[in-house]
Amino acid sequence: MNGFTIREARREDCREIRRLIQELADFEKMPDEPKIDANVLEEDGFNPEHPYFYCFVAERSLEDSGDAVVPNNSGEFSDIGACGSSNTGTSDDSNANILLGYALYYYTYSTWKGKALYLEDLYITPGCRGQGLGSAIFNRVAKRAFESRCSRLDFAVLNWNPARDFYKAKGAIDITEEEGWHHYRLDREALAKLALEVNKVNVNNE
Amino acid sequence: MNGFTIREARREDCREIRRLIQELADFEKMPDEPKIDANVLEEDGFNPEHPYFYCFVAERSLEDSGDAVVPNNSGEFSDIGACGSSNTGTSDDSNANILLGYALYYYTYSTWKGKALYLEDLYITPGCRGQGLGSAIFNRVAKRAFESRCSRLDFAVLNWNPARDFYKAKGAIDITEEEGWHHYRLDREALAKLALEVNKVNVNNE
Repeated sequence: MNGFTIREARREDCREIRRLIQELADFEKMPDEPKIDANVLEEDGFNPEHPYFYCFVAERSLEDSGDAVVPNNSGEFSDIGACGSSNTGTSDDSNANILLGYALYYYTYSTWKGKALYLEDLYITPGCRGQGLGSAIFNRVAKRAFESRCSRLDFAVLNWNPARDFYKAKGAIDITEEEGWHHYRLDREALAKLALEVNKVNVNNE
Repeated sequence: MNGFTIREARREDCREIRRLIQELADFEKMPDEPKIDANVLEEDGFNPEHPYFYCFVAERSLEDSGDAVVPNNSGEFSDIGACGSSNTGTSDDSNANILLGYALYYYTYSTWKGKALYLEDLYITPGCRGQGLGSAIFNRVAKRAFESRCSRLDFAVLNWNPARDFYKAKGAIDITEEEGWHHYRLDREALAKLALEVNKVNVNNE
């Protein structure tokens, strides 16, 4: 962990977070799924009245960041190579530090045990793995869950993802395997259809 | 659906909701899991500054509720028999109507598509099934998701639960089966251990 810092995300990190969201979707073999843009992340995560999510990010520590990579003027990011150590950026905008990873979470609720925390994404860019960064950022989320009196920390992992061993070592239980929970999803099209049903059948219950 | 109403839960419903949470846990063969009490539900769901969940409930319509069952003075509820039609209660506290079912949900976030909704529990008491009540309350949640511009509605179902056919008919996809997502969970004991790790290893990153 020498040379790295984990901190709360700031509004100005959203472009970088969006870049990492895409990297994660590519890794998950669903590259076309992310439809979100950085402005939406800014609005949804950094609206003080109702943040829909919270986020930790990993970056090089300031004292080591003399050659950190930043976005160039076209908004493109270069490959950060050996974990953020190459220097191909052209901008000196210090508000847009290159990020090496992120953990995005929100609060949920268990009707068995009360307040809970859900880790939506945890991602470390490939060149920065094997240095304890994933472990450190995961522990930070766990600490946040513990200190905010959450009863549990939940997340979903693809069955072929080697990170399953990592999560198991952290003490996580695969409750799909152990208890038989399957995750179901309705998309917006399905929701629209059901919403129409309500309007049609049951106006008196509004 | 004749004779039934679906409405937003109110603070005074929490004792009834807690009773139904237990019925659901019994059905799920995990009767010892619910550790929550009605006061916590009141505080967590009906604190206007930060509600951790929202809830729809089903009850008999007022015009049909002449013989509705209500809790007796000892706080016990009688078996509601043929869907809330027996009359064994002794209290006339109209704020504690017997509930026939509930759907408890909260807002989450997709880094692919933005705001989303998670249905934590949907439950209809056995004597009231087969009358369209489950369908109606599920559709109300779907409508809420759609109208609040959620990208999707997610929930978890046990692999042996016959309700899987019902959800499939509603247009839900089993993404554990289709895409291989497994649900992982850390309990508070595991969280405490990881939180300690952060304090031990990495005080500089606070």
